[in-house]
Amino acid sequence: MATLSRLNKIALLGLGAVGGGLAYYQMGRSEKQYDVHNSWTTNYTPSVKWDKNWDHREPESIVRPKRSDKPEDENKYNEQIEKAKSKAVRHLFLIRHGQYNTDGLTDRERILTELGRQQADLTGKRLSCLDIQWDLLVRSTMTRAQETASIIAKHLPKDIEVTDCQLIEEGAPIPPEPPVGHWRPEPKQFFQDGARIEAAFRRYFYRAPPEQTKDSYTLLVCHANVIRFFVCKALQFPPEGWLRISLNHGSITWISILPSGNVVLRCLSETGHMEPKYITSR
Amino acid sequence: MATLSRLNKIALLGLGAVGGGLAYYQMGRSEKQYDVHNSWTTNYTPSVKWDKNWDHREPESIVRPKRSDKPEDENKYNEQIEKAKSKAVRHLFLIRHGQYNTDGLTDRERILTELGRQQADLTGKRLSCLDIQWDLLVRSTMTRAQETASIIAKHLPKDIEVTDCQLIEEGAPIPPEPPVGHWRPEPKQFFQDGARIEAAFRRYFYRAPPEQTKDSYTLLVCHANVIRFFVCKALQFPPEGWLRISLNHGSITWISILPSGNVVLRCLSETGHMEPKYITSR
Repeated sequence: MATLSRLNKIALLGLGAVGGGLAYYQMGRSEKQYDVHNSWTTNYTPSVKWDKNWDHREPESIVRPKRSDKPEDENKYNEQIEKAKSKAVRHLFLIRHGQYNTDGLTDRERILTELGRQQADLTGKRLSCLDIQWDLLVRSTMTRAQETASIIAKHLPKDIEVTDCQLIEEGAPIPPEPPVGHWRPEPKQFFQDGARIEAAFRRYFYRAPPEQTKDSYTLLVCHANVIRFFVCKALQFPPEGWLRISLNHGSITWISILPSGNVVLRCLSETGHMEPKYITSR
Repeated sequence: MATLSRLNKIALLGLGAVGGGLAYYQMGRSEKQYDVHNSWTTNYTPSVKWDKNWDHREPESIVRPKRSDKPEDENKYNEQIEKAKSKAVRHLFLIRHGQYNTDGLTDRERILTELGRQQADLTGKRLSCLDIQWDLLVRSTMTRAQETASIIAKHLPKDIEVTDCQLIEEGAPIPPEPPVGHWRPEPKQFFQDGARIEAAFRRYFYRAPPEQTKDSYTLLVCHANVIRFFVCKALQFPPEGWLRISLNHGSITWISILPSGNVVLRCLSETGHMEPKYITSR
């Protein structure tokens, strides 16, 4: 019985998607009879709904429901909702480390190249001239990220809070779709890194807590796979699409999390602050 | 009967997604029993498959199937597949126009501001120093895009081919998800603009035809909604997510379409070539 009712529910959801349009997108090309293109132009329903409670901080999901429809209960409830609401923007700046010695056998040998240090320096300069009051600098514990962050920090106020984080070390977040031939980590790598990088996402990505009154600006110096996975997750795009994005060394990716829980990508892989001769991605 | 078998197929697809992971993503929070987080770490199937034939140019979809398994038929087939294959990269640079007079009542009054002209000039300079041999400059026919393109063109070789395109004028591509309060075009606008902007996507986004031997570089000077919709469509992310992206005036967004049909986003809303005082987005 349980199974049957589940099937029915999923079937109904499936049909909803067909009616609404991009079933095509969800199901792939193999189900040709469901290829409904552009049907939003006649009768639109989104193919994928935005999950408002993605960070488990949506006030309605936290506050105890109204006891009754009496005005005093309603007022109390509304007050508590208001108290639970986020009031500020959390800005996250995701910085990829500079170019490094890929021939190194251990992490400690994978240090920045001369060019990599220059990239970090140029990015530090750019960040400093944005006239932002940084709240926190988080550094991946891998050598190339630590080096990059140290060079960047030279351009930032001396009193900036700095923390090291192992969760944002480089890794294999989730098998990419479409798969690519030249990059095929072992399943156990996705198994271990995937959970870690998901944990990192949940550590840093959430709307501002209600007690935060000022917009905050956090710098995370980390790695290409981690940042690309974060971008897909934060925008609620399919996370396995992360390898459709390419990031330059030392690039700036800026994501804002609004009080509503909505998320905005403001730039991605920005290295316009570098002369073209400094730009590399591998 | 037909209905039943459809239901079953969708039900199976739905279950596949649950087994594979991000059912949560596809179905939203309302179906709590299907919230399976991180299950790719145990048994991974992508939540959404990449559509390899998105531009209807996948060789296997064009070439007539093998007549038989005889070696001569096989050879002939393989030859034709080889001939139908794309051999070069198509690079598309999507430029948003500069800041403009939003108080203008007609398009002709919505001309660039002084700052908007400076932004266009800085972006032209940046594009010229990338050392790229541009093949084509496409300009939206709206005044602010025409002005921006003219200023940019001053920095490009005089012999660059220029075309005007009405399909890439600004509009309402598809109702955004999540919806936003301050921007609610009428249904008829989505109805008309949606089909036009989809047509624009199909005009400019496709892998290089087999006869193209050299990588090509196309500049499209157009508009924020159009560019954001293009990015989502090209990456096969849900197109209604386009408003989760913000684009600066005069910004550069770079997408590469590989011979395999795979698509790479190289940067988005890049304005690092401007001093911060020149950067605006509204």
